[in-house]
Amino acid sequence: MANPYETDLPRTPANYTPMTPLSLIERAASVYPGYTSVIHGRLKYTWAETYARCRRLASALAAKGIGVGDTVAMLAANIPAHYEAHFGVAMVGGVLNSINTRLDGPAVGFILDHAGAKVFLVDRELSATAKSALAHAEVKPLVIDIDDPEYAGPGERLGDIEYEDFIAAGDPAFAWKHPDDEWRAISLNYTSGTTGNPKGVVYHHRGAYLNAVGNALEWGMPQHPVYLWTLPMFHCNGWCFPWTIAAMAGVNVCLRKVDPVLIFDLMKTHGVTHFCGAPTVLTMLINADAKLKEGLKPGVRVTTAGAAPPAAVIQSMEELGFHINHVYGLTETYGPAVVSAWHAAWDPLPLSERARLRARQGVRYQMLEAIKVMDPETMKEVPADAQTMGEIMFRGNIVMKGYLKNQKATDEAMAHGWFHSGDLAVLHPDGYIEIRDRSKDIIISGGENISTLEVESVLYRHPAILEAAVVARPDEKWGETPCAFVTLKNGAKATDKEIIAFCRENLAHFKCPRTVVFTDLPKTSTGKIQKFVLRDQARAL
Amino acid sequence: MANPYETDLPRTPANYTPMTPLSLIERAASVYPGYTSVIHGRLKYTWAETYARCRRLASALAAKGIGVGDTVAMLAANIPAHYEAHFGVAMVGGVLNSINTRLDGPAVGFILDHAGAKVFLVDRELSATAKSALAHAEVKPLVIDIDDPEYAGPGERLGDIEYEDFIAAGDPAFAWKHPDDEWRAISLNYTSGTTGNPKGVVYHHRGAYLNAVGNALEWGMPQHPVYLWTLPMFHCNGWCFPWTIAAMAGVNVCLRKVDPVLIFDLMKTHGVTHFCGAPTVLTMLINADAKLKEGLKPGVRVTTAGAAPPAAVIQSMEELGFHINHVYGLTETYGPAVVSAWHAAWDPLPLSERARLRARQGVRYQMLEAIKVMDPETMKEVPADAQTMGEIMFRGNIVMKGYLKNQKATDEAMAHGWFHSGDLAVLHPDGYIEIRDRSKDIIISGGENISTLEVESVLYRHPAILEAAVVARPDEKWGETPCAFVTLKNGAKATDKEIIAFCRENLAHFKCPRTVVFTDLPKTSTGKIQKFVLRDQARAL
Repeated sequence: MANPYETDLPRTPANYTPMTPLSLIERAASVYPGYTSVIHGRLKYTWAETYARCRRLASALAAKGIGVGDTVAMLAANIPAHYEAHFGVAMVGGVLNSINTRLDGPAVGFILDHAGAKVFLVDRELSATAKSALAHAEVKPLVIDIDDPEYAGPGERLGDIEYEDFIAAGDPAFAWKHPDDEWRAISLNYTSGTTGNPKGVVYHHRGAYLNAVGNALEWGMPQHPVYLWTLPMFHCNGWCFPWTIAAMAGVNVCLRKVDPVLIFDLMKTHGVTHFCGAPTVLTMLINADAKLKEGLKPGVRVTTAGAAPPAAVIQSMEELGFHINHVYGLTETYGPAVVSAWHAAWDPLPLSERARLRARQGVRYQMLEAIKVMDPETMKEVPADAQTMGEIMFRGNIVMKGYLKNQKATDEAMAHGWFHSGDLAVLHPDGYIEIRDRSKDIIISGGENISTLEVESVLYRHPAILEAAVVARPDEKWGETPCAFVTLKNGAKATDKEIIAFCRENLAHFKCPRTVVFTDLPKTSTGKIQKFVLRDQARAL
Repeated sequence: MANPYETDLPRTPANYTPMTPLSLIERAASVYPGYTSVIHGRLKYTWAETYARCRRLASALAAKGIGVGDTVAMLAANIPAHYEAHFGVAMVGGVLNSINTRLDGPAVGFILDHAGAKVFLVDRELSATAKSALAHAEVKPLVIDIDDPEYAGPGERLGDIEYEDFIAAGDPAFAWKHPDDEWRAISLNYTSGTTGNPKGVVYHHRGAYLNAVGNALEWGMPQHPVYLWTLPMFHCNGWCFPWTIAAMAGVNVCLRKVDPVLIFDLMKTHGVTHFCGAPTVLTMLINADAKLKEGLKPGVRVTTAGAAPPAAVIQSMEELGFHINHVYGLTETYGPAVVSAWHAAWDPLPLSERARLRARQGVRYQMLEAIKVMDPETMKEVPADAQTMGEIMFRGNIVMKGYLKNQKATDEAMAHGWFHSGDLAVLHPDGYIEIRDRSKDIIISGGENISTLEVESVLYRHPAILEAAVVARPDEKWGETPCAFVTLKNGAKATDKEIIAFCRENLAHFKCPRTVVFTDLPKTSTGKIQKFVLRDQARAL
């Protein structure tokens, strides 16, 4: 007999809607029209206004012929237009390609071409890069300048129209359409491409919706959070938080520049409740002038990721009264997809021990189906012994649609039904994963694997060290040896010998740096230390 | 040119998983294995244990040949086995049909036949009903007795095996499989069928997952809530809360009987943070002995629905220190799908005004795509004037899959791409809907529509009245007139003349009851007043 539960019960417009983050802003605007949506310097919008501005943008894009599958590129700081583009572009079926603002002109030009950009929204502050990019690119997108009234610095207008004029011509009641399929692309994010050309990671509406909701669930975010935009919106679409904040009808506090003076001021002025940032941002806050921190109410919640935060950083943040939430993910997983879920039983532990537990990457997001640490050769799971390294693999609805126009890379990344992260980790007996290294970062010395993160976590505990990064240095005898690049705190002093001795007290000798270089560390705009630059330097030593 | 975002980027096992609530319990058990999952009298389970018990149940069902599309019926109080069935049955692809425990034997027998039940789990307390049902039914399901060790009352075993023995034979590590399609049925819930035969509402995995998550989002539920099971699990699968509590790795405090002594005791003993209940449950708590309430910490959160709560009930609950969340939905919408979302601007209003605002049904859940009040003839929206009545229509992913083996009813309910609720409402200028009546409850007197809910809300404000229900009474001159059935508070006194005079002070005269009957009100097991019984009585007056 046929299964009666599958007979005559089809999807209809009444009981099936493709999921999309666009329904989140529609609700925020209809239920909380008068609530503040976006604050940027002296500018302040309500949800009704932001929604209307997004619809104007969509309407104006549609009038230029932009529709399903068309790429709208963007080079901008965390300003209102950037937020609005996260909705307005998708409202016409377009794909938002928010580009890393630290890239140089040729790199941005490569992306414009690869993405086939039809529109290019350019923040005036970034016009020099954009101009160079356009000179290098073959595509000739419509260029729209964003001449932010809150920005008075250098830069020029490159296009024929300014953003406010462009959207002013649009219809604030524009009847945007739901995507006809939740698998449709919503955005395109290029990997940082530390080697070779970057790859274009495609997100779809289903995944963006689920991760937006997942962020709120995992973080236990209440309605109406006040969210500070320390994290770049170009980084995995701000880890999907533009859509999360719409879901919770919160306040987006814009931030053009990651600067501790600004950050502490905005936190105090607007009563910020949540923000995100790479560990380097946290380090910056920890080491900021104590005066800046005066009057800050404890309990501000911060989600950190982008690199494994040293336990010392977590500890210092907690001492300052911040609640740390540690997540992990990649561009390919819509940003965060793993969370270092907390256990009440750990509350009474000493702070250093709590920080050590918190520093582990953790367990899958609810919205992720599974995470495993496997041997990529055999696809067998490593034992949960906190020792055996394997590659972190993801599976579920918040894994990317794939790489744009790169079937080979997509197939390789998705081989055997799992997304291969390239990150090496161990599995703890309690099921939590902990990253040991990127595959390409691992140091192999005398046949032994050395996790650079493990060495760095020791360096961060040294009282004089502000920041540290360890890479492989070629060695005739050992193959490779660890080479440490460190930045000392203001006014602090230490010698290479002292630092190596400190490491020997806390690490197996073969893991200790043979070389210590005192320097500033090169970083990407998202705060990731550029180890490939350091590796080049180490080779040249 | 082909859209490059749709080329070579298919769904694969790496980036697509059918959504299912089963992934919620897998995570609770793997991340929080030692956390308490279920408390029932002296019984207490952890998430690792509950998950293992669910897998045992699934394994034992599979051994009996139960698989995809097979119905497992259940007649039970809110006990651990009932909770476990919400996962164990779906783990083999089965469909859980949890039956209203207040139905009589023939009605349950009708359901067993219509659902094609292959297994019937029977709480010993309900064996009399089950026995009668089996005698009336044509199907011969495998009967499994649940002989709850915490239950010492009357009842007999009907089948060959007891639940604990049945699952003891199952494998606690049973490798259950994800549904191959998120559109697959997960449960079957019969409408209360106040007239005619009940209809079987089919839920699917996608909707159950989304509403489970939606409950947590809308309620701003933190991780690890302590949830008291005042709401029957057979009612729309406990509004999807069995799955919500797994998602949040909370504690399920079981409750065999809705009794204020038990409820206040469990609240205090286990530190209950959340519960759900129909307004009649709230009325029971409000009118309970003051001694019971001593020592209860304020701030317990209650979600109420199932009938529009009179403002007076909301006000009294808030005075007792409870936080009210008012939601609305139907069996066909997985329970709650609309929420009376709160605005901070309403906080300073007088309590009575706040209660009036809170009593409105409100706005769509995030997970619902749209709710509209429309003229069912023209499918045009009513004006947002708080006056014009129309039918509430739903659209989105938390609308049922359809009615089992009833294509005609399914097609009618889903006509024109909207689910027709049969509830009449007005739309307020702020976009909130407020129910005026069920289509069949409305009173038409002298050509004027009278909302029985509006009359009842006035009656509830009368100091002597505990509960009230208004129905139509046939009238030669007016067609119909309002007839009020009221229950007075313990020791309170009032006459019909006084009550009618009170109504005239607060209502247009034509809306006031012409007749007042002092009586206990007949109710369904979910606390809904059975107006069809009262209509019969009114006709006979």
